[in-house]
Amino acid sequence: MELAFDEKDFLACCGSTRFATEMAKASPFPSFQAAVPAARDIWFNKVDVNGWLEAFSAHPQIGETKSVASGKSDTSAQWSKGEQSTALATATGSSLQELSDWNVRYKQKFGFIFIICASGRTSPEILAELKKRYSNRPIEEFQIAAEEQMKVTELRLAKLFSAREHMASTGDQ
Amino acid sequence: MELAFDEKDFLACCGSTRFATEMAKASPFPSFQAAVPAARDIWFNKVDVNGWLEAFSAHPQIGETKSVASGKSDTSAQWSKGEQSTALATATGSSLQELSDWNVRYKQKFGFIFIICASGRTSPEILAELKKRYSNRPIEEFQIAAEEQMKVTELRLAKLFSAREHMASTGDQ
Repeated sequence: MELAFDEKDFLACCGSTRFATEMAKASPFPSFQAAVPAARDIWFNKVDVNGWLEAFSAHPQIGETKSVASGKSDTSAQWSKGEQSTALATATGSSLQELSDWNVRYKQKFGFIFIICASGRTSPEILAELKKRYSNRPIEEFQIAAEEQMKVTELRLAKLFSAREHMASTGDQ
Repeated sequence: MELAFDEKDFLACCGSTRFATEMAKASPFPSFQAAVPAARDIWFNKVDVNGWLEAFSAHPQIGETKSVASGKSDTSAQWSKGEQSTALATATGSSLQELSDWNVRYKQKFGFIFIICASGRTSPEILAELKKRYSNRPIEEFQIAAEEQMKVTELRLAKLFSAREHMASTGDQ
């Protein structure tokens, strides 16, 4: 069984237009396992640095649930909330404030928001990671953010495929 | 003797606003030799990836003499012409056309123009380098372009200091 998706589906996984276009071109994929290497190749070899910045800006800041570029994808916003559920459950008012302050410092230094695959990570873990990464050189941090973005994309592709397989098996189109 | 420069001087050396601001803050420098490590530190550790893109866009395309962001700096435009003098002297109509075609392909793949320290390099050498670099991954090429930008910046800083020293020694202010 081949599963076809359109650009909008892939844009919810990764907010780079180029990524979404190329994934739609490479689609359909026989499985999630087949989509991952294609996605990695597109993200690291075909999407340019402007595309990386575009994808980063599609995320809400960690500790918030609404992205600056909101309205782009409702699915992306919902997934983002789910990915941050552990962080939000372990956050206190003061830790959220500290996270917010460090987000500002990070953005001032690097010119893009802090990207981390937040899934399963607590608020203190995320804050510690942000502080550690803050000392990196801008170009190093750019590459780390791109790796984290890819982790997020893979998790979201998994959700996309599992929802579609579920629909296909139950006949719920 | 300390040589003071303002932001406009540094912007002619490198078109990143952040670079120019930080260099002006670090100024005055006792010599060109003292300015280079400061410039390298600012460019690689303090200017973010948006600043790198800003600097790249301040250059004309190789084989042309007018930058898209022209009007920013007359000094930069003049220097650029001088840096490309070997390339222009060794170019034929068809090689300029080929360079122009490859510039388009390069920009489409990487999202910024081809940056090379052209000083002393012939047109065929530059074309060969462009073709070789075209196969790089976007993030690799971004870093190579930043290294080339730094070489251009150093050459321009040398000109800036030598012109100022000449003025100071002849009393021609």
